[in-house]
Amino acid sequence: MKITLIGSGKLGTHLYKAFATNEKIQLIQWVNRSSKKQKTKEGIPLNKQWNPNLKSDLILLAVSDQSISSISKSLPKESFVVHTSGGISIDALIQKRRGVFYPIQTFSEGRTVDFLKLPIGIEAENSQDLKNLNELVKSIDASAVEISSEQRQHLHLAAVLVNNFSNHLFFEAAKLCEENQIDFRLLLPLMLETVEKLKSLEPQEAQTGPALRRDQETIDHHLKLIKNSQLKELYSLMTSAIQKNHDQ
Amino acid sequence: MKITLIGSGKLGTHLYKAFATNEKIQLIQWVNRSSKKQKTKEGIPLNKQWNPNLKSDLILLAVSDQSISSISKSLPKESFVVHTSGGISIDALIQKRRGVFYPIQTFSEGRTVDFLKLPIGIEAENSQDLKNLNELVKSIDASAVEISSEQRQHLHLAAVLVNNFSNHLFFEAAKLCEENQIDFRLLLPLMLETVEKLKSLEPQEAQTGPALRRDQETIDHHLKLIKNSQLKELYSLMTSAIQKNHDQ
Repeated sequence: MKITLIGSGKLGTHLYKAFATNEKIQLIQWVNRSSKKQKTKEGIPLNKQWNPNLKSDLILLAVSDQSISSISKSLPKESFVVHTSGGISIDALIQKRRGVFYPIQTFSEGRTVDFLKLPIGIEAENSQDLKNLNELVKSIDASAVEISSEQRQHLHLAAVLVNNFSNHLFFEAAKLCEENQIDFRLLLPLMLETVEKLKSLEPQEAQTGPALRRDQETIDHHLKLIKNSQLKELYSLMTSAIQKNHDQ
Repeated sequence: MKITLIGSGKLGTHLYKAFATNEKIQLIQWVNRSSKKQKTKEGIPLNKQWNPNLKSDLILLAVSDQSISSISKSLPKESFVVHTSGGISIDALIQKRRGVFYPIQTFSEGRTVDFLKLPIGIEAENSQDLKNLNELVKSIDASAVEISSEQRQHLHLAAVLVNNFSNHLFFEAAKLCEENQIDFRLLLPLMLETVEKLKSLEPQEAQTGPALRRDQETIDHHLKLIKNSQLKELYSLMTSAIQKNHDQ
């Protein structure tokens, strides 16, 4: 499969790495505005602008949500164009042959993300394009799941809850540890088990702690320990939400 | 080392399993109010009440926070008594030889918790007792860290944030998935990576998402998708907290 990859942010760079050395994929060009070279070390053409002479079966947009629509408009109407965003509908693309390839993962600089078995939400308007997206996912050993634009917006919201918001809690916990000369990484096995548990338990079964057992003494003590008013508010809201959900 | 274990809740049961077959530990009795047998399958005496005739080097209380003080009062003043709670000060014990053994982990029924390298916060009043607690931790291949009662209350608060509150976010995410016919477990690799990232990055470096990049369009869209008013409040509060912390 001949692929054009547009975008050199965190996801774009991870996809380039997954594609460049993959025997099943022919990366025809990588549109990378920040590169000063003309070819990657694997010999793949690097362009600041999309080069229409380098034909491919699929143009993959790993760009910001805000750029998807304008880049789509700048590409040929007959191309098969696919974006990679969790939060943007397939309708943001003007092509008739359009699709979505949404890796359900968080990508950071300096982290190597393993695509093996990684769920990738795919969507396309026609069955042949969907088949091609399935092939693309298979070729990097990831795991394709058909997800509609309607479903994907909810999945993206859920991803924000489990990733961005949990990470904020980790940030607050790390700050508490630092203020009290405790190594934050002592909490890592607990944090891992919090996730691992859900391989065999539902989140509701896995819940424990002072909120759930209505241990008001500990809750009051924690609120007294918290100096930051926003964290205090967050603690109260979380405690009340856990209790409310368990009453249902 | 001769140990008396009091308590048969989730932690008590996990500790019994770790001690019963351990060659370095002699479990003298297990005080377990819910058992109908007189001995465990390993031949360890099971008692509904603590039996003062079965002498041990250390009495370990794996009981509810509320029971620690009254059980301590019912035990000999000269015994070495140790509780296992994150939220309770060492002062809740009346013995002169007193200590804390706090496994920084979440314990659920039906989950086998691995003690290997698990950090266990220990505290004792005198150096010999501290040495004994260190030995106990070593004998189950866990990892001892000296943590004072003052520090431990903050660590326990941090544990509530990373475990109980994250789990509540996972619960809300699972609900969103269920309402939209999406398999919640598609989010597991993302959830694992959210934690794994912190082996090499600080939580602040690891943060991504619409709140951080001030993508108001996505934030507004998510708030529109959320029907539950409490979750809406939580979303707004988290978003504002992430933005505030990144301004600092």
